[in-house]
Amino acid sequence: MQHNGARVEDTWRTCSKSDSSGASNSGCESSKESSRSSTPVLDTDRTDRLRDKMRRRTESGDHWFSLEFFPPRTASGAVNLISRFDRMGSGGPLFIDVTWHPAGDPGSDKETSSMMIASTAVNYCGLESILHLTCCNQTKEKITGYLSKAKRLGLKNIMALRGDPMGADWEEEEAGFNYATDLVKHIRCEFDDYFDICVAGYPTGHPEAESYDEDLRHLKEKVDAGADFIITQLFFRADTFLKFVRDCRAIGITCPILPGIFPIQGYQSLRQLVKLSKLEVPEEIMQVIEPIKDNDAAIRNYGIEQAVGMCRVLLESGEVPGLHFYTLNREVATMEVLRQLGLWIEDPRRTLPWAVSAHPKRKVEDVRPIFWASRPKSYIYRTQDWDDFPNGRWGNSSSPAFGELNDYYLFYLKSKSSKDALLKMWGEELTSEQSVYEVFTSYITAQPNVAGHKVMCLPWNDDPLAPETNLLKDELDKVNRRGVLTINSQPSINGKPSSDPIVGWGPPGGYVFQKAYLEFFTSSENVTALLKVLKKYEPRVNYHIVNVHGQNTTNAHDMQPNAVTWGIFPGREIVQPTVVDPVSFLYWKDEAFALWIEQWAKLYEDESPSRMIIKYIHDNYFLVNLVDNDFPLDNCLWQVIDDMFELLDNPPEEQPAEQTAEQPNDEQSDKEQPGK
Amino acid sequence: MQHNGARVEDTWRTCSKSDSSGASNSGCESSKESSRSSTPVLDTDRTDRLRDKMRRRTESGDHWFSLEFFPPRTASGAVNLISRFDRMGSGGPLFIDVTWHPAGDPGSDKETSSMMIASTAVNYCGLESILHLTCCNQTKEKITGYLSKAKRLGLKNIMALRGDPMGADWEEEEAGFNYATDLVKHIRCEFDDYFDICVAGYPTGHPEAESYDEDLRHLKEKVDAGADFIITQLFFRADTFLKFVRDCRAIGITCPILPGIFPIQGYQSLRQLVKLSKLEVPEEIMQVIEPIKDNDAAIRNYGIEQAVGMCRVLLESGEVPGLHFYTLNREVATMEVLRQLGLWIEDPRRTLPWAVSAHPKRKVEDVRPIFWASRPKSYIYRTQDWDDFPNGRWGNSSSPAFGELNDYYLFYLKSKSSKDALLKMWGEELTSEQSVYEVFTSYITAQPNVAGHKVMCLPWNDDPLAPETNLLKDELDKVNRRGVLTINSQPSINGKPSSDPIVGWGPPGGYVFQKAYLEFFTSSENVTALLKVLKKYEPRVNYHIVNVHGQNTTNAHDMQPNAVTWGIFPGREIVQPTVVDPVSFLYWKDEAFALWIEQWAKLYEDESPSRMIIKYIHDNYFLVNLVDNDFPLDNCLWQVIDDMFELLDNPPEEQPAEQTAEQPNDEQSDKEQPGK
Repeated sequence: MQHNGARVEDTWRTCSKSDSSGASNSGCESSKESSRSSTPVLDTDRTDRLRDKMRRRTESGDHWFSLEFFPPRTASGAVNLISRFDRMGSGGPLFIDVTWHPAGDPGSDKETSSMMIASTAVNYCGLESILHLTCCNQTKEKITGYLSKAKRLGLKNIMALRGDPMGADWEEEEAGFNYATDLVKHIRCEFDDYFDICVAGYPTGHPEAESYDEDLRHLKEKVDAGADFIITQLFFRADTFLKFVRDCRAIGITCPILPGIFPIQGYQSLRQLVKLSKLEVPEEIMQVIEPIKDNDAAIRNYGIEQAVGMCRVLLESGEVPGLHFYTLNREVATMEVLRQLGLWIEDPRRTLPWAVSAHPKRKVEDVRPIFWASRPKSYIYRTQDWDDFPNGRWGNSSSPAFGELNDYYLFYLKSKSSKDALLKMWGEELTSEQSVYEVFTSYITAQPNVAGHKVMCLPWNDDPLAPETNLLKDELDKVNRRGVLTINSQPSINGKPSSDPIVGWGPPGGYVFQKAYLEFFTSSENVTALLKVLKKYEPRVNYHIVNVHGQNTTNAHDMQPNAVTWGIFPGREIVQPTVVDPVSFLYWKDEAFALWIEQWAKLYEDESPSRMIIKYIHDNYFLVNLVDNDFPLDNCLWQVIDDMFELLDNPPEEQPAEQTAEQPNDEQSDKEQPGK
Repeated sequence: MQHNGARVEDTWRTCSKSDSSGASNSGCESSKESSRSSTPVLDTDRTDRLRDKMRRRTESGDHWFSLEFFPPRTASGAVNLISRFDRMGSGGPLFIDVTWHPAGDPGSDKETSSMMIASTAVNYCGLESILHLTCCNQTKEKITGYLSKAKRLGLKNIMALRGDPMGADWEEEEAGFNYATDLVKHIRCEFDDYFDICVAGYPTGHPEAESYDEDLRHLKEKVDAGADFIITQLFFRADTFLKFVRDCRAIGITCPILPGIFPIQGYQSLRQLVKLSKLEVPEEIMQVIEPIKDNDAAIRNYGIEQAVGMCRVLLESGEVPGLHFYTLNREVATMEVLRQLGLWIEDPRRTLPWAVSAHPKRKVEDVRPIFWASRPKSYIYRTQDWDDFPNGRWGNSSSPAFGELNDYYLFYLKSKSSKDALLKMWGEELTSEQSVYEVFTSYITAQPNVAGHKVMCLPWNDDPLAPETNLLKDELDKVNRRGVLTINSQPSINGKPSSDPIVGWGPPGGYVFQKAYLEFFTSSENVTALLKVLKKYEPRVNYHIVNVHGQNTTNAHDMQPNAVTWGIFPGREIVQPTVVDPVSFLYWKDEAFALWIEQWAKLYEDESPSRMIIKYIHDNYFLVNLVDNDFPLDNCLWQVIDDMFELLDNPPEEQPAEQTAEQPNDEQSDKEQPGK
């Protein structure tokens, strides 16, 4: 576990001149970035390329792991795989890789293609990713097309493979791709140093190679052609790998060689893999497995034990800087092996309070509007065409527009839950606005709804409540019951250590701060009362109140963002990664209101009462955000809401007619009716 | 006094869309600025032009004052006048103006020219300034040249005057400048809307005008030609001015008309002014003054009383948004009048922790290195050629170089004290390094030196200790006695209100923070011990240690600034105006070491022991800066210095020889000897 806490610190410390040669490799992009960004990039992991990260981790003796996945067969499989990326990404893999299936249209825009899955991992899950690419039977134009597309999508790493010939009549082509070496050369020739290139190593020799030595010579050719590191085929004995590494070093292969680890997960998957890879399973393993071949749990437990043992030997050899896992798209076995090895990061230190995209263009992104806190993939999608990331401001001439809201069904923005599951959570039938309020309170309190189902998500939050939000649970419960339908909130934080397990982020030795924030939908009646109450809280509380038609009431400067999360770190400038930005709020408003209809109302029949209730809320409620600027004091936003309820419960007496001329009745005043 | 606290708040509040028309008047510069700056401009006063500031203050009923000065005759007079600008600037004038003396080479680069004095006020004292310009007997080319030069120097406002003909044989010229109107037209024709233009009004009519009405018509012509506001000649009765304003309004003059106030300061100056301006002093005033004409104090007291009474009538009339004072380059009477009127800001709220230059190019400057904290004019001078102000970083390609150190004798960088005074303070004769230490402790403690003189300044600090530094007095005293020669320091601040009278800055309702900072010269021996001690304080304390040769030791990133002052304000992004920047530190180092020689050593004879002692310090001492990153804890920098003294007082025992091989004696290690 020793490395866990040290992860951010290491990258932090090595951000020094000794590292400048590596950093300068990333070329013109990096120099452009450094002159652009306002706040310091806290973590060189964000700017380094994969081979430099490996080098640094190797030099510091900080072992890593990586995870291999294959593309799913169905769209719903893709949604599940992406959730898995998010979950497994939290354990801190140095990278993941996505295999290339020539028969599955791997370079297409389909939700299930290798290209799209890898691109999603990079852009939306923030994972350093390697895209596999096979060249056999492909034209140079086709391969260049794939590589150009990969580059365009933000992919920086390629696993260059020959692949299996399709059909039996394959022969070497004169100017074609006959070996992975040809592909490596082609990549370096066409794309210079842009990609990091990985190639495959065969600890027992490639099954088609004339000999083990012949195969080693081919591997040397691949490395000489420009490959940066090697991942091996799976193997079952540590010695097999360690001998292979010695043999590689002996013929002058100096790059990193990562062992491919295959935790045995079941009898059938083992047999299938062995058949495909033409490997032999050692006798001592078969002797254990055959007797328990019908007991999946037992085989998996054995597989975990066997992998842990082998990995320990590998790591202790000093020859292995990191472990590569063939996950078979499953979580449990690989995570258990990693946990037992102490490589899984249980409590990943966050570089920023939000997940950083791994797209090379976005790595220096340093500020985001708070509104998309629970919908980070949507934010990334809607800003994907930006060339430059504004540094706090979205409103001036230098900032590009937000992407249109015309792609709700993009698979990575879909809810993880089925329509049936959503209906169970959000109500098969709604009878009133109150029944909508109850859905919100069930979600907040994690208590079952009237039908006995737990509400695990809402249209604005596809995951259960964040630990930080849990700090506010009682208050949130209370206000949601009365129709203050909260969709985003954060408590105030006055200088907690950056290592705080719940609210901490950034390198150690720093302090993080927050202004309290609350965002909710509520009725026009409530807003009228709220606006009166808010007068008492000037200038302490900033608000923006808007309805679906864009009628907007605010006491904030219309172009000036309000920083609501910031951090102070040793030897650094201030980092302010989250803001309430008035310009982007109006883009968020479109999305926040549309989710009522797209994700909730459309679950019900057209013209049904349930749909009409949601439609009524969509058409008539206001979206409100509140910031308590006085972060060192107790959060006053709950008091604001309490005061609003108090005013609604005990409205002031109607003014006598003779006083009305001097003191106009606020309730009749246009000014008090937002958006009227 | 009601407006004092409201000053920053007003400009803060009005920074909203209702103000965008005014702001957009400043044209392309302002839009460029807004896309460039990283942190928000907190105060629209910094970006507005003078006429917009007047409009906002008039609309809000917030009375202002302004101050008129004439250029000095001698260079030492110029140094004194600039000190006066700093002192009187602290009272919060909306602007100052500098008269134009055709006989005094007013447009030249001489230290005493009108042009240079006005430029110094704008650039180095941060004062909004109006340069007078007379056109009589001048060619268009000459006038255009003056205006171009004024623009180049950052002046934005011109008082357009005809001036008095030189000699008696003046006649109107066909295409020349015959009236101020011609000059106004010329400025608008040649410089479009760049300058704000002021013209003179004569409450009793211009002495040369045919009639009062004729003169009013001329004034109307000046305004119609493009003048933005009017300042009147002095007068002695409020009624005179108020009638004049009514008459102006009656013929359609709508721009602001500011009364010129002349507090009577002495019998002779009154007589002279009256003669020059051809004004009559009212009988009721002469009756008071004549009997006391030899009692300067009595006359001044009467003048103050008379001015206060008249100003009260003017302000209460509702016709007067601001008062313009003819100061005669004196402080006492004008300040007293302003104090009695409640217009003098006793505790000026600071927009940023350092004084903002009024140069249009520099108004959006939002961050400075802490090193020049006591030498802000030097920083402005050395960065005067920058087109763009880096936003925290001085080291990357976008940041221009610092100006050379070849102009020590620039008048505005000169010490305010004479050589004699400096010798009294810093020692007629130095006998040892210790006698230098005593000069520092005398300065810190404000106690007389051995010769009985108070040390009011040091080469690095031309003013007595700042109130903030006074918080550290006892500690500073203690360390200076032992040769830790402090030249800059600030305490840590963990979230004090922005309205704090000592450390506060920025708009109300905010919180300001600081990391503790200490900068000093000290001997190589001390530095060797200090470096050992600092190991215990990693990563809490960042240090930079450099000698005159540029040999540099640091534990900080070599390009990353450390923010040491920042503020959090309602509805804003974080503001971080002061940093410890490693790149600019090496430029500061040149200046800091040079001051030993240029300001101190050169007081003594060449080869004299005194000079040799200073020279020795210059050649052998190190300049050290320390930052305590852990701002919420008690400042640890004093403990660092204490630990250093402790190590020097009780050096560890020499290691036995047999252990030396394994544990190299640090004192002999190259690594421990900075710069060796």
